[in-house]
Amino acid sequence: MVIGKVVGSIVSTRKCENLVGNKFMIIEPLEEMSACAARFVAIDNIGAGIGETVLVATGSAARVGMEDSPVDAAIVGIVDEGQK
Amino acid sequence: MVIGKVVGSIVSTRKCENLVGNKFMIIEPLEEMSACAARFVAIDNIGAGIGETVLVATGSAARVGMEDSPVDAAIVGIVDEGQK
Amino acid sequence: MVIGKVVGSIVSTRKCENLVGNKFMIIEPLEEMSACAARFVAIDNIGAGIGETVLVATGSAARVGMEDSPVDAAIVGIVDEGQK
Amino acid sequence: MVIGKVVGSIVSTRKCENLVGNKFMIIEPLEEMSACAARFVAIDNIGAGIGETVLVATGSAARVGMEDSPVDAAIVGIVDEGQK
Amino acid sequence: MVIGKVVGSIVSTRKCENLVGNKFMIIEPLEEMSACAARFVAIDNIGAGIGETVLVATGSAARVGMEDSPVDAAIVGIVDEGQK
Repeated sequence: MVIGKVVGSIVSTRKCENLVGNKFMIIEPLEEMSACAARFVAIDNIGAGIGETVLVATGSAARVGMEDSPVDAAIVGIVDEGQK
Repeated sequence: MVIGKVVGSIVSTRKCENLVGNKFMIIEPLEEMSACAARFVAIDNIGAGIGETVLVATGSAARVGMEDSPVDAAIVGIVDEGQK
Repeated sequence: MVIGKVVGSIVSTRKCENLVGNKFMIIEPLEEMSACAARFVAIDNIGAGIGETVLVATGSAARVGMEDSPVDAAIVGIVDEGQK
Repeated sequence: MVIGKVVGSIVSTRKCENLVGNKFMIIEPLEEMSACAARFVAIDNIGAGIGETVLVATGSAARVGMEDSPVDAAIVGIVDEGQK
Repeated sequence: MVIGKVVGSIVSTRKCENLVGNKFMIIEPLEEMSACAARFVAIDNIGAGIGETVLVATGSAARVGMEDSPVDAAIVGIVDEGQK
C-alpha cells in the first residue's frame, strides 16, 4: 500500500455501469513513497476528504469486496493525524 | 486508475481470437500522472474518441466483465470537460 | 519479493473492516533492491519489529490466506541476521 | 498493453513443464511506450517473427486461455504495417 | 518475464508456513532488461545455481501450481548457455 494525500477529485458522467456511484479521488503519494511523485486516481470507500492523508491499496487488492468494478486503486484507510 | 488523453489507435489484423472486435487506443497519461510520460495501449469499451480525456484501469481490472480477453488496460470512463 | 527494512508503522483508525486487527509497517527496500528507494506500506503477519530486515511479497501474493483483505504487500519472512 | 518490436528469442531447455512448447521472444518496447526501453520476454501465441511490431499484454492477462502456464507477458496481436 | 542472473540466496528461518521448503534466490536482471538494475528475490522451482542465467516470471504467474504460497516471482527456466 502507499500513503498519499487526497488532492482532488474527478467527474466522469460517461463511464462503465459498474462504476456508477463511485467517487474518484486524485491521490498524490508522499514524496518518500514515490520515485516520481506521479499522481493517480483511486476509488474512495471510506469517506476521505480532500487534504486527508490516506492509505491506498493498488492492483487487484482494490477490488476486494467489489469484484465487479473495474478499479485498480482504492482508499482503504485514513491515516490518523499526527502520523506521517 | 490513470487519467490520460486518447492520442491515436492501432490496427492489428492478426490477433488473438478473443480480441476480435475490440478497439485499441493509444493513451498518453497526463504529465502529472506519469513519471515518464510513457504511452500505452488500452481497450475502449466506452466509445472514447481521439483527443478525449479518459480514465483508464490497468492490470486485471481491465478484464472485469470480459474475462476471456487478454487485456491489461481498459478505458472505463470519459472525464467530463472542464475537469482536468 | 523484495528485501527491505521495517522503518516505522502507521495507525489508521478509520479503515476498511477487513483491515481491522492488521499492523501496517513502513518498508524501505534495500538500496540495491529499489531503483528509487521508495518506501511502501505492508501488512505484517510474522511479527516483525522495527529495524528488522524482512522479505516482502507484493501484489496479489500479499492476499494468499487472507483473500478478504484489501492489501497489496505483506511481510512473509524475516531475513536471518548476518544475511544481507 | 504495450507495442514493441520482436528483437530476438531465447532457448531454455530446463524449464517448468507447463512452459514446454512455448516460444520465448525478446520484446523491445517502442521508445515512446517505455520510460526506460527495458526489454522483456513474452510468450508468442500468434506466430510473430523477429522484426515484427507486436501488441503485448502483461500481467495475468498473459495467461488468459493458458491458465496453467507461469507467464506474465504474451504477444496478443501483430500491428499492421504502416501503423506505428 | 525477465532474464537475470542468480547472484545469491537468502535464509529466512521465521517465515510464512507456506514458504517452508522454498529456496529464495536473489536475481539481478540483465542490464538491458531493467531500467534500474534493481535486484529482487524469486523462488526457485527448477534447481538453478548461483551464476546461472534464468527466466523469471513475476506477479501472479509465480504462483501457478503453488497457489498457496505468497510469492510474486519465480524462476521458471534456465537459459541455455551461449544464449544471452
